[in-house]
Amino acid sequence: MGDPAGIGPEVVAKAWAVRTAHGLDPFFAIGSRRALAAVFSGPVETIAHPEAAAEVFPRALPLLPVEDPEPFAPGVPGADCARTALDSLELGVGLVRAGAAAGLVTGPVAKGELRAIGFVHPGQTEFVAERCGVAAGAVAMMMVGPDLKTVPVTIHLPLSEVPRTLTVELVLARARTTVKGLQRDFGLPAPRLAVAGLNPHAGEGGMMGREEAEVIVPAIEALRAEGIEVTGPHSADALFHAAARAGYDAALCMYHDQALIPVKTLYFDEGVNMTLGLPILRTSPDHGTAFGIAGRGVASPRSMIAAIRLAGQCARARAAG
Amino acid sequence: MGDPAGIGPEVVAKAWAVRTAHGLDPFFAIGSRRALAAVFSGPVETIAHPEAAAEVFPRALPLLPVEDPEPFAPGVPGADCARTALDSLELGVGLVRAGAAAGLVTGPVAKGELRAIGFVHPGQTEFVAERCGVAAGAVAMMMVGPDLKTVPVTIHLPLSEVPRTLTVELVLARARTTVKGLQRDFGLPAPRLAVAGLNPHAGEGGMMGREEAEVIVPAIEALRAEGIEVTGPHSADALFHAAARAGYDAALCMYHDQALIPVKTLYFDEGVNMTLGLPILRTSPDHGTAFGIAGRGVASPRSMIAAIRLAGQCARARAAG
Repeated sequence: MGDPAGIGPEVVAKAWAVRTAHGLDPFFAIGSRRALAAVFSGPVETIAHPEAAAEVFPRALPLLPVEDPEPFAPGVPGADCARTALDSLELGVGLVRAGAAAGLVTGPVAKGELRAIGFVHPGQTEFVAERCGVAAGAVAMMMVGPDLKTVPVTIHLPLSEVPRTLTVELVLARARTTVKGLQRDFGLPAPRLAVAGLNPHAGEGGMMGREEAEVIVPAIEALRAEGIEVTGPHSADALFHAAARAGYDAALCMYHDQALIPVKTLYFDEGVNMTLGLPILRTSPDHGTAFGIAGRGVASPRSMIAAIRLAGQCARARAAG
Repeated sequence: MGDPAGIGPEVVAKAWAVRTAHGLDPFFAIGSRRALAAVFSGPVETIAHPEAAAEVFPRALPLLPVEDPEPFAPGVPGADCARTALDSLELGVGLVRAGAAAGLVTGPVAKGELRAIGFVHPGQTEFVAERCGVAAGAVAMMMVGPDLKTVPVTIHLPLSEVPRTLTVELVLARARTTVKGLQRDFGLPAPRLAVAGLNPHAGEGGMMGREEAEVIVPAIEALRAEGIEVTGPHSADALFHAAARAGYDAALCMYHDQALIPVKTLYFDEGVNMTLGLPILRTSPDHGTAFGIAGRGVASPRSMIAAIRLAGQCARARAAG
């Protein structure tokens, strides 16, 4: 449920409430009982083990509790809430690593509060990667909307550092992680990648930038030599309309906004953030703690619902693969 | 009609054919009679002066002819076709400058062919600006979709040059041109601007880039001091979904793809390119000559229809203002 003082508990409870209409697979919440009770008057049943969740799920939201934060009030972050969020995350990763659950959906956390209690990772993704024994640089973030998946090659960098950070090796690494993720989690035996250019009009033949010729084209050629179906570099502005989207399974983008603008423009509150390259399945709603509206009952659960639904779909694809 | 060998003549003729259904104001074509005849079997009437157009328009496409290219075949560009395109553009600018027409809609041209016949401008926009006595750097390009207008501060630059090109003065200049354009051509007395950040999460308080603090925020403060209603810097990925779009009249973007991805993702074949900062009204469909499909009758006229419709709407707003 992420930070207990954020909207995580509320959107998890709301997702449970619409589980049938949205065809959600059985899930259980991990976090503070008190935080859940503060925002949800529906049925909650504490479970001792994940295996109890499926039986409880039809009649109540199954909760695997961790220690409640003290003091606690929705909308008021603090060290104790951050500890509860970390306890929940740690427990969730461990259970999925152990095979007790098929996938992990992480609620939003307060990075500043986590840092204040000694959390050394930039975000939950890097923490999960470390716990899984995977270098943080080896994972990829995929934004998933109903008919569009994008993967940024670089993520949380100033834009001015993006051109010099792009290398053939980095583009290749992200592309390979993307292809493996599409195969394993989406059941696509031969995924089709579309690669965006970095510059306007993908450089227009070198007239507006050289990164396409020097980095992106060599990476595309290497991917083709590996048997991967890949097109590009494409003008980014022509890559995301409906007809273009139908031509690929995922678009590999060069920087954060190039990947996130199309998904969030089309699907603002139903985009899902998924981590590829981990041994475990991990999705996450694409919003923050929203402390400003926590506890008011007005948070939209759409992204959480989409994250839970996607985790279920991918878990089945993995099981079938 | 732009390059006679491109899809310009076809989409102009197709726009005329649906003039009533789309409520298009009377317009006339400028270009090669032969190029039009090659792709349009409907009624065409040659006019000698723009004032004849309105009377002809209900029954035939009025054409103000320029010299036909020789040789000519749809889909085959060449020097003579480029000359015809330039003749048409020159005549169009002159007529609108003289007040004989309320606005100019430019069809697509072949930049390489134009360069080969001595055209020294990067594109039609800069040519039109020069003919109007306006420095090319003083105009702004606005992408217009049904419910989204974006203006890039920088346009045809390699992405690596964008950060160092952004200055407070440049952001201010584009913002002022945008505000004036919205007032004059869209009848908005107090336009609302939203300004995008350059970096992921608009720099996240300086943690991912300094351009927001050093350039964009000072520009926003100066605009506010001028009485302009402006918000930002916004995270670009959260700026273009439907609810966000309702909060501003135009989004000022820092670079080409930031402005074009949202418009072309949402409205791929009905986006219009409009030039602000000129004394004359000028719109243009947002596609190229498409020589590969010219002459086959399959070109979509949607962007040309939108460009003509927008020119009419803006002309009326100017007349009323």
